[in-house]
Amino acid sequence: MDKRGILIVVSGFSGSGKGTLMKKLLEDYDNYALSISATTRSPRPGEEEGREYFFKTTEEFEKMIAKDELIEYARYVNNYYGTPRAYVEKQLVDGKDVVLEIEIQGALKVKEKFPDTMLLFVTPPTAAELKNRLVGRGTETMDVIEERMNRAKEEAEGMEEYDYLIINDDLEDCVREMHSIIQGEHRRSFRSQAFIEQMKQELKGE
Amino acid sequence: MDKRGILIVVSGFSGSGKGTLMKKLLEDYDNYALSISATTRSPRPGEEEGREYFFKTTEEFEKMIAKDELIEYARYVNNYYGTPRAYVEKQLVDGKDVVLEIEIQGALKVKEKFPDTMLLFVTPPTAAELKNRLVGRGTETMDVIEERMNRAKEEAEGMEEYDYLIINDDLEDCVREMHSIIQGEHRRSFRSQAFIEQMKQELKGE
Repeated sequence: MDKRGILIVVSGFSGSGKGTLMKKLLEDYDNYALSISATTRSPRPGEEEGREYFFKTTEEFEKMIAKDELIEYARYVNNYYGTPRAYVEKQLVDGKDVVLEIEIQGALKVKEKFPDTMLLFVTPPTAAELKNRLVGRGTETMDVIEERMNRAKEEAEGMEEYDYLIINDDLEDCVREMHSIIQGEHRRSFRSQAFIEQMKQELKGE
Repeated sequence: MDKRGILIVVSGFSGSGKGTLMKKLLEDYDNYALSISATTRSPRPGEEEGREYFFKTTEEFEKMIAKDELIEYARYVNNYYGTPRAYVEKQLVDGKDVVLEIEIQGALKVKEKFPDTMLLFVTPPTAAELKNRLVGRGTETMDVIEERMNRAKEEAEGMEEYDYLIINDDLEDCVREMHSIIQGEHRRSFRSQAFIEQMKQELKGE
């Protein structure tokens, strides 16, 4: 089959567990690469260039924007965050499926620019469970929880724009299911043009 | 998640092993039902009404056509063959994934009428392997093999119209993969409208 990897954008409610899920996906299976973002914010203690982020000056970052070297980018507060195209492209060519965690507006922009992108939305099984998880963390004030729930309401409006819904009930099951969905996606005909062409050529020669 | 089953149309080259594959899929997993065709041809020894076919008179069959009671139908030589809608619909409502084996023209007609249908195309890994399998059966004359290979050339032109390509190299692997692809397809957002609506409602109530 065609060996090129798939660009996979993962989004989900805060509290959906998508971070843990992606971490485990990369631990359990070896055909994935995590996309590394570029940012203009300063490195925090323990962060390494090219591991957590590619650290850039604002000037460097704006040059990348101008040269269309970013798949998508956004500005939060006073810093830029974006996805460098070169790194992702290299991984895809090497046959790795590249996982990119971004929020919904960014996800839809990526899909528009690269229609072959696979959009996954991670959700707990119910809204009550989402709230439980946010409360259960014990690290957030009720104000923050309310804010996250409000944000979830907005995000839910975009759920149907995603290709797949991943229901994160049990972590182990969910990782297996996510991997299986991605494997299945590799068998979609539009990802196998090279195989189809070869089969047609071979049949003509028989 | 939404409990309605998926209508799955399976096609493939003669010699692709799709018959064996589907038989094993139904043996190994219990969420599938095989669609049963209606036909005007006479029952052969051992065939039972409602097991191999629903046997109909030409008059009855033409009445079914007129009442739009068939998902698709075709006429071969002097007999009609078709897929009764009522049986398929009952299985789908019961949450079964219904597998229907038809050739490409029928498959595309079904997809047009029911866009939620999942189209699977089964193929050996190479054209040489396809020929090997036809020759290896030892039951066909070289004329028949040539005719099948010519038909395969025509059928290959439609491969990209299918949603998924299933490469049948090893039967066991292939059955597992086919099942896994179908399971993944259940997670596609457009099949989960009820879940999405419920999540939105719940979040509004929080």
